[in-house]
Amino acid sequence: MSQFYSHRDLEFQLFENLDLQQLTQYPFFADHSSDTFKMVLDAAKEIAIRSLRPLLTEMDRKEPVLENGKIKIHPGMKAIVKQFGEDGWINATFPYDEGGQQLPWTVHLAAGYILQAANYSASVFPFLTTGAANLIRTFGTLEQTARFTPKMYAGDWQGTMALTEPDAGSSLSDLTTSATPTEDPEIYKIKGQKIYISCGDHDACDNIINLLLARIEGAPAGTKGISLFIVPQKNPETGESNDVLTEGLYHKMGYKGAPIAHLMLGSNDNCMGYLVGEANQGLKYMFQMMNEARLGVGMNAVAIATAAYQASLAYAKERPQGRKINEKDLRKPQVPIIEHADVKRMLLFQKSITEGALALLLYCSWLSDQISQEQDLDKKKGLESLLDLLTPIAKSYPSEMGLQTTSAAVQVLGGAGYTTDFPVEQYYREARIHPIHEGTTGIHGIDLLGRKVVINDGLGWKTLMGEIQKDLQRAKSIESLSEMISTFQMHLKVSNECLIKQIAKMKQGPEVFLADATLFLELCGHLTVGWMWIRQAITAQSKTESEGKSDFYKGKLNTAQYFMEYEIVKIQSLVTRLSSNEFPTIKMTAEQF
Amino acid sequence: MSQFYSHRDLEFQLFENLDLQQLTQYPFFADHSSDTFKMVLDAAKEIAIRSLRPLLTEMDRKEPVLENGKIKIHPGMKAIVKQFGEDGWINATFPYDEGGQQLPWTVHLAAGYILQAANYSASVFPFLTTGAANLIRTFGTLEQTARFTPKMYAGDWQGTMALTEPDAGSSLSDLTTSATPTEDPEIYKIKGQKIYISCGDHDACDNIINLLLARIEGAPAGTKGISLFIVPQKNPETGESNDVLTEGLYHKMGYKGAPIAHLMLGSNDNCMGYLVGEANQGLKYMFQMMNEARLGVGMNAVAIATAAYQASLAYAKERPQGRKINEKDLRKPQVPIIEHADVKRMLLFQKSITEGALALLLYCSWLSDQISQEQDLDKKKGLESLLDLLTPIAKSYPSEMGLQTTSAAVQVLGGAGYTTDFPVEQYYREARIHPIHEGTTGIHGIDLLGRKVVINDGLGWKTLMGEIQKDLQRAKSIESLSEMISTFQMHLKVSNECLIKQIAKMKQGPEVFLADATLFLELCGHLTVGWMWIRQAITAQSKTESEGKSDFYKGKLNTAQYFMEYEIVKIQSLVTRLSSNEFPTIKMTAEQF
Repeated sequence: MSQFYSHRDLEFQLFENLDLQQLTQYPFFADHSSDTFKMVLDAAKEIAIRSLRPLLTEMDRKEPVLENGKIKIHPGMKAIVKQFGEDGWINATFPYDEGGQQLPWTVHLAAGYILQAANYSASVFPFLTTGAANLIRTFGTLEQTARFTPKMYAGDWQGTMALTEPDAGSSLSDLTTSATPTEDPEIYKIKGQKIYISCGDHDACDNIINLLLARIEGAPAGTKGISLFIVPQKNPETGESNDVLTEGLYHKMGYKGAPIAHLMLGSNDNCMGYLVGEANQGLKYMFQMMNEARLGVGMNAVAIATAAYQASLAYAKERPQGRKINEKDLRKPQVPIIEHADVKRMLLFQKSITEGALALLLYCSWLSDQISQEQDLDKKKGLESLLDLLTPIAKSYPSEMGLQTTSAAVQVLGGAGYTTDFPVEQYYREARIHPIHEGTTGIHGIDLLGRKVVINDGLGWKTLMGEIQKDLQRAKSIESLSEMISTFQMHLKVSNECLIKQIAKMKQGPEVFLADATLFLELCGHLTVGWMWIRQAITAQSKTESEGKSDFYKGKLNTAQYFMEYEIVKIQSLVTRLSSNEFPTIKMTAEQF
Repeated sequence: MSQFYSHRDLEFQLFENLDLQQLTQYPFFADHSSDTFKMVLDAAKEIAIRSLRPLLTEMDRKEPVLENGKIKIHPGMKAIVKQFGEDGWINATFPYDEGGQQLPWTVHLAAGYILQAANYSASVFPFLTTGAANLIRTFGTLEQTARFTPKMYAGDWQGTMALTEPDAGSSLSDLTTSATPTEDPEIYKIKGQKIYISCGDHDACDNIINLLLARIEGAPAGTKGISLFIVPQKNPETGESNDVLTEGLYHKMGYKGAPIAHLMLGSNDNCMGYLVGEANQGLKYMFQMMNEARLGVGMNAVAIATAAYQASLAYAKERPQGRKINEKDLRKPQVPIIEHADVKRMLLFQKSITEGALALLLYCSWLSDQISQEQDLDKKKGLESLLDLLTPIAKSYPSEMGLQTTSAAVQVLGGAGYTTDFPVEQYYREARIHPIHEGTTGIHGIDLLGRKVVINDGLGWKTLMGEIQKDLQRAKSIESLSEMISTFQMHLKVSNECLIKQIAKMKQGPEVFLADATLFLELCGHLTVGWMWIRQAITAQSKTESEGKSDFYKGKLNTAQYFMEYEIVKIQSLVTRLSSNEFPTIKMTAEQF
């Protein structure tokens, strides 16, 4: 079986490039060490290879089916979900007194990366349960936590996030699922329908615990009138139906192993929902979890792109075709295609994006771990602003660029890549979901430019610039990086000038200001991942000096150079467009298309 | 059924933007007129809607199967292939005395665009037969033509191009299929295997006529020792097996309705091949047809991208979600998503690429029609140089950009676009083949920079510059286009400067010279399609003046502006990279990945 991720790179990212040790200074993580972290990664590798990877292709080919109102998934998933529970993956980051291991989220996410790269569909199940359980334990009552979470942690019950409705996708303020009070102030009768609910029904678990947004009768319009409910598929004690019916199963282009359901709630007027926290605070609660979910999606995107990169790398090293371009003697044997510059370009493209985005996501989760434990409120506020700013980038950059890198993986294999004989076509289809779910790229562009960049008087952006400057200071003394650094600094400068121009457009109203927010988001992706490559180059260079030259570190340095030569320069074209005052997209009417 | 292409735009392209009438001055086309051309397009529309479109989804879901050594395809294809024959599509461009209609290839390609947009898989069958028959009638004997082509024209027999072998894909010089002379100088015994043969076996036709490359025993090594053979699946007269066995059927990510076969030739030492033309001239013959095939692939890519664009446009006009960004009143109804600037950006992106690439392909086929008839040898040579130069661009730009535009179509639909409820996910999968077949994008980059740009002392590039200047002269007097023109001219200038730098790198050897040929190809795509938008803007502006303002022409002008604002600026980042003298892709070793 070929490699689907690089354990060596993951350890470099966590233990050489990131100061993970720092987290163990917080009391919550104090029992941990590099050794326990490495054990977690090894355990993830073990379950990935033994349980998840063998089902990768089969779960794609044998799609879930809807029979008699019940979704049936691949029979192998039951044991996997149970194993995730028994091995403690679902609640690994939660406190000891809740049965957790107080593991930093960074390590948990890194372990998730291994599982996702092995088999994205299979990895979705526990990921969703963790998110749903976290909502209950954070905002619900102790009684709710005791009632619902233990079986979720055990892998017996599936958790979901039920937000989308037929008329409320990106526009959550328009959701209409209703909640009618009963005599019990905790219990409401739920009526409505939810679509695109990942793992919203399947037969690998005994119950499905939907964390669902609905509107209590008489609540204010828009997002201020949305409440959060626990809506189990079956009554947790009696096992009786809670009037949550599976109306449909969506057939998708990719990650076919994970079912996406259309749910009908309260068709028989008998669907009970348990209010979580206060009424009308649902969206706020959901969004606190959604930030983690968004980084999770970014990581999913990196993981799939990584698996595709590794598959194309293995192929390129083995497949003979053609000769070196300056070799005219046809009697010489063909060379492996990795010897061709254009193939190396496609591989470096993938390596630079996947390893750069992985660095960004681990950096973000490392910020998140600090935020969760930090007692110094000023420091905490700065870290929060930075993480808030980086989240839409860390979700969108790997999602969008992952489409291009998985495409490059297909291209490296040529005709073979288009056939089902190799997994890259599956990765190409699976990757396509990520720019869509957990907020489309367009939504994240508006979130970044319209909110994250401007709130708190620009604290997030200022913090980002401060952190970048610290790394540039570190790099200053390293002569061999000077060209790379000057390229990066030039792009940093034009990006800042561009931002000032964007802010100036606020005067022209939100439509003009945000018309190209998606492009600004793209620009910030190239810039921040460029920064991640500066950080990796500094680490690799220092290791090269202390430990002698190795292919691994030389490869890192070459890839950093590749990024500055081929990727970060994309900022230039974006800046030209963003600096313009012509707006054909606003001018164009529906009739003119 | 929603629209899958714009007939209005196609007529604009052919009859307003392109001087199609000019072709009828050549005696070969003299019987034709705009009216007969329009009848052909109407006929294509009719068969597309009535026969091809209804099978689009079904042919994707019910894949061909290999049973008892025979590939079975969708049963509906038999009637379609026969109809293509009976309606005269397969030999429409050939002379009257061969049963053809002497139709300009431009019109034939435009008609093909309609069929391809309706159902790409179904459109592949006649397209391949035309190409194979054209090889026989052009390079074969009169006897071969009489023996094989009539049943191909009738749709009874399928034609194929059999080039690729397990060890010879991009590197055709390494092919090993052998041809052993027999007593009859026309007949050779063929032995070997061919892979990825489109329509290489199926049950909608009575025979398969493979146009196959093989090496006659003792022939020179490399491309100079390759000969072309007609290798029918069955003996044309007796119907007996010609020892061409179907060893396998490839399962693909997309265009599943068209089977791709793995063929074994001469397993029983009984496979006869009929030599076409002279020995060892096979690759030269094949390449003369391949240029047309490459433009055909470019058109396929445009057609699929067009269908995806139209599907997303229809959805955007109907799907209500959210409100205008400056509307705070949530009681107002939601607006169709086409009202959001970012959605319009994604639609303009698609419109600008698909209509710009369509213009380029029709321009190329219009050159090809002139070349085929032109008697003035100097003029002919200039046209040939221009077409040779444009061919790799016209194949690759729509193929590569089509991946991005079909992706944008998926994105416009959001979650719905990822499901099989809408056709965009199918288009996304189908589009992925085009950067691979008929020469990968990397191969075309090397062809463009390493050959087409430099041969004949740069005649092709000079001719291109001359033609562009003519259009810029025409545009000069149109005040409203001045900003667009100056943006284009600036990018034309930097592109020329960049080319000079590329040429200067020849001194450093072919590896450095061609390391970024793919990026240079990309640059030329943005530039030439930008030129096509200048041409369309001139036409639209003049029509606006003569016929009053209409949404159609205003839409064209906005889209031209969009292209100059958002697309052609991509040249800047490419130029920066191409101007560099750092080569991380060459430096990187296999071990460093």
